[in-house]
Amino acid sequence: MSDYAAPLADMRFALNEISGLAEIAGLPGCEQAAPELVDQVLDEAAKLAGGVIAPLNAVGDREPSRLENGVVRTPKGFSEAYRNYVEGGWNSLPFDPAHGGQGLPQVVATAVLEMWTSANLSFSLCPMLTIGAVELLQAHGSPEQKRLYLEKMISGEWTGTMNLTEPQAGSDVGAVRTRAVKKGDHYEITGQNIFITYGDHDMAENIVHMVLARLPDAPAGTRGISLFIVPKRLVNPDGSLGGHNDLRCVSLEHKLGIHGSPTCVMAYGDRGGAVGYLVGEPNRGMELMFTMMNNARLNVGLQGVAIAERAYQQARDFARQRVQGRPAGTKADGPLPIVHHGDVRRMLLDMRAATEAARALTYTVAAGIDRARHHPDAAERERQQRRVDLLIPVVKAWCTDLGVEIASTGVQVHGGMGYVEETGAAQHLRDARIAPIYEGTNGIQANDLVARKLGRDAGAAAKELIAEMRTLDRELGAARGDDLASIRRQLSAGLDALASATDWMAETLATDMPRALAASVPYLRMLGTVAGGWLLAKGALAAQQALTQRPGNPRFLEAKLVIARFFGEHRLAGAPGFLPAITGAAAVVGFDPDLL
Amino acid sequence: MSDYAAPLADMRFALNEISGLAEIAGLPGCEQAAPELVDQVLDEAAKLAGGVIAPLNAVGDREPSRLENGVVRTPKGFSEAYRNYVEGGWNSLPFDPAHGGQGLPQVVATAVLEMWTSANLSFSLCPMLTIGAVELLQAHGSPEQKRLYLEKMISGEWTGTMNLTEPQAGSDVGAVRTRAVKKGDHYEITGQNIFITYGDHDMAENIVHMVLARLPDAPAGTRGISLFIVPKRLVNPDGSLGGHNDLRCVSLEHKLGIHGSPTCVMAYGDRGGAVGYLVGEPNRGMELMFTMMNNARLNVGLQGVAIAERAYQQARDFARQRVQGRPAGTKADGPLPIVHHGDVRRMLLDMRAATEAARALTYTVAAGIDRARHHPDAAERERQQRRVDLLIPVVKAWCTDLGVEIASTGVQVHGGMGYVEETGAAQHLRDARIAPIYEGTNGIQANDLVARKLGRDAGAAAKELIAEMRTLDRELGAARGDDLASIRRQLSAGLDALASATDWMAETLATDMPRALAASVPYLRMLGTVAGGWLLAKGALAAQQALTQRPGNPRFLEAKLVIARFFGEHRLAGAPGFLPAITGAAAVVGFDPDLL
Repeated sequence: MSDYAAPLADMRFALNEISGLAEIAGLPGCEQAAPELVDQVLDEAAKLAGGVIAPLNAVGDREPSRLENGVVRTPKGFSEAYRNYVEGGWNSLPFDPAHGGQGLPQVVATAVLEMWTSANLSFSLCPMLTIGAVELLQAHGSPEQKRLYLEKMISGEWTGTMNLTEPQAGSDVGAVRTRAVKKGDHYEITGQNIFITYGDHDMAENIVHMVLARLPDAPAGTRGISLFIVPKRLVNPDGSLGGHNDLRCVSLEHKLGIHGSPTCVMAYGDRGGAVGYLVGEPNRGMELMFTMMNNARLNVGLQGVAIAERAYQQARDFARQRVQGRPAGTKADGPLPIVHHGDVRRMLLDMRAATEAARALTYTVAAGIDRARHHPDAAERERQQRRVDLLIPVVKAWCTDLGVEIASTGVQVHGGMGYVEETGAAQHLRDARIAPIYEGTNGIQANDLVARKLGRDAGAAAKELIAEMRTLDRELGAARGDDLASIRRQLSAGLDALASATDWMAETLATDMPRALAASVPYLRMLGTVAGGWLLAKGALAAQQALTQRPGNPRFLEAKLVIARFFGEHRLAGAPGFLPAITGAAAVVGFDPDLL
Repeated sequence: MSDYAAPLADMRFALNEISGLAEIAGLPGCEQAAPELVDQVLDEAAKLAGGVIAPLNAVGDREPSRLENGVVRTPKGFSEAYRNYVEGGWNSLPFDPAHGGQGLPQVVATAVLEMWTSANLSFSLCPMLTIGAVELLQAHGSPEQKRLYLEKMISGEWTGTMNLTEPQAGSDVGAVRTRAVKKGDHYEITGQNIFITYGDHDMAENIVHMVLARLPDAPAGTRGISLFIVPKRLVNPDGSLGGHNDLRCVSLEHKLGIHGSPTCVMAYGDRGGAVGYLVGEPNRGMELMFTMMNNARLNVGLQGVAIAERAYQQARDFARQRVQGRPAGTKADGPLPIVHHGDVRRMLLDMRAATEAARALTYTVAAGIDRARHHPDAAERERQQRRVDLLIPVVKAWCTDLGVEIASTGVQVHGGMGYVEETGAAQHLRDARIAPIYEGTNGIQANDLVARKLGRDAGAAAKELIAEMRTLDRELGAARGDDLASIRRQLSAGLDALASATDWMAETLATDMPRALAASVPYLRMLGTVAGGWLLAKGALAAQQALTQRPGNPRFLEAKLVIARFFGEHRLAGAPGFLPAITGAAAVVGFDPDLL
């Protein structure tokens, strides 16, 4: 069992010194993000996350959501916590004020979402799915659909789901078979979907399902898929709730982790057809889904950060109180807490450094979304969007892989106690393991990065990013001190390797796509590692400047320098080592699968 | 659910081409290991492992061992399978023929134990613990103790346990508080031990506990610990079973994995004192424990190999049958099994290559144990023992870290299905996660490698190993073909880095032990990676020679070249990247833990 306290100082450092919150707050449409308000929002969110939502994390793991008489019961306490969350107005943070949103920038909403997620990944999935559905409707819903659904979903009174998966249609969404037939002013939907997060639950009075289905005359594949609103309870024209729609949760999955979150098999139209409403034009469902893809993937990447933070806090607290052995070289007479053992401290520093790098990258991309939406200069908006598009798959895959690794290190810090479920460390590992899989597996993210993001401009956006990173490299060269010198050494080597790899990718994409794809995961890992190191270096430079120029917390700032250096020596130093795996991808492509 | 088929061709390749089984079989005392007999042993073990023990793996996960009315009931089928195992004579494979053993070399016993472990890690722990107890008694038991206990334990009719852990004494074994007081011809033992694997069960008629305890006048710390035999049922002088001893299983741990294996809290002497018999001299218990440490750590390292192999087989089989999407660049009209997607194939190759490297290292060290015991030349025996001592912590830590990583990749290959428990992929990850923790955490292994193994000869044994690896490097330089050229490139770079790191370690050990210890895990990982790459390179060279010189299975041999190359480009290439983490350890040591 562990407490969670939002790492407010680290979050503020990442927001202010790395992702440029002050600049975001100066953009038209982001005026809400005045420093005092943001401070207050973060403080209040930390209270709800730490005080109410975090204590339910172990509860949900031990007493999972369950299906009883056809309805899903969430774990004890989830409903009350969700009511708190809705009443506090937390669901509406980033949304359009025209529909009841608070219009805060994405980067602030991201920091707040990190807290819910660290506190309780299972709980946070319900709002996260709702956010996705809201974004779809905000962008593509008809005025009538917005009127009927949007306000309640923005407030969180109603929740949302995404139905994209069927047994034969997982990563290959184009294989969806759910059918939709026009019937007067609506459609009748029939089919079965799997892996529907919060497909049913008892935390809200209505659930708005976003469902992909095929019209009778639709072409095969992804170009024949349409998107429908299918509410659990029908909504009368005056907005009041009508009868139950023809849909139900058939069963729940028995999963490795996120036990609190019900993962539903959903049946639509068992009794003839569920009432659905077309969103946007027929056969354009996949395009519409891409609207929310960037944010959804960012938020899943954030789960990696959030679980890593939670696992880190628990491991650190354990290491401070668990007394075991006398470390070599210590002057103590007797045994000491294990945090004084060199390798335990190495593990904790690694957890901390990797978490901060992943947070820096995630917040920076969230800030990029704000810039891409709100910057007054159109060319800058476009540049920012290119950068966001490039880095979103990196955030999703790199941060979630780190989340699993860091949670596993957290178990290790606990020794034998980490393997006993009562301790809670193992839950973080089990929970973290979903994030590299859903919302597009990390392999699919890497394919997206290479084939789509590098492919569409022959690597121009990536090269632009590398050039920008090189300017920091030069600034580091002009700075003083061992820490920054070490950081620069690793960053320079990483950038050289990344530049070579990017050139190789740009060439290979044009001539041999299977080879480029087989190299995509090592390339993504290299890019994530270098970008994470770059952003921590940026923070380290800011910390060093702050140390010399203005009062502050010198120990906190000094620690930022050491943490960035640690990341450089322990992780960024590994970036060049990915190059042979990238350029050697021919061995993968040519390997006869019968010999596996 | 997955089948397991022992990878006999790969095992034989590792035994014959990498670890030098033929040479072992020629040593005095290893005559049993004639090729025909070894072949037959492996074939028969594969049948029992795949046909009987493997199907119980999922059973034990779903219906864990449980404590009922004070006795432990193992999962359905375990008892019958264990009877099969004992009746087949499998427990006695490596032991002294004077006590009913079969006298087979360690390296053969290791290959066989891999099969039980892949088939069912939970099941395999019972024999594994018995093996440890047998080794202790074989080496240190009195003639009377051997007469009464050894034969039954070698046959497997009785099983053994190790009791080294108390709540306040985990990694710090010296903190043990269990007491032993002399009473006539025996001792009375009182105390509580935790984490006792198969501390109670229903698979054998007696359980022989090896228990660490303190005599009343014992000095503090590890030099005041004595070792006792404490049988579950007392043994009469004629070898027949007497009454129950004063010991019981108080409770079972609720663990992340290895659910089939009962992890017991054991109470000794609740009713006054359990009868125990001193093994060896008083206060020498820790020294005696070291007797079985090398083998026990080898066997836990082997668990990493075994789980990786099982996870690999399951992922490969899934990837061959799961149809999803049309890979880029393929000529197929429709969707194909996912094994044809580049990144899935990369994952499978990585699982395969890492598993083979870990197996090669484990078998080679097992063969080293045989050489250290049986080589006719005393100097060579000593040299082999130094090599074994050096590499045992590497086998334990490097292979078990890989086991977790590979099992996690296995989950990833399954996509969403991997997160659903019914599939079975997640069980491998949960089970694998214990191996880096028990039998000395991997951090402790790294400390042992650095402080004890490098420390005792200032790195001489490590330098000797590096020199031997360099001779292969030269052979590779003389060989032809792209694969071997790539392998050599990576091996050379890895060896250069390892040589630098070893020099740094040897110097730092002498001047700054805390710094050396803080660098010990990255150093161990580097050494494991280079040693694994070296042994696969050795296999690749043998495969190339075999391809040109004698008939065989060309596709199998060609695959060995590509797998070794893959390991070089994807893992060995990362070895130099550990260097900055090693030499930069001052940042870890100097970091104020209050700032974590």
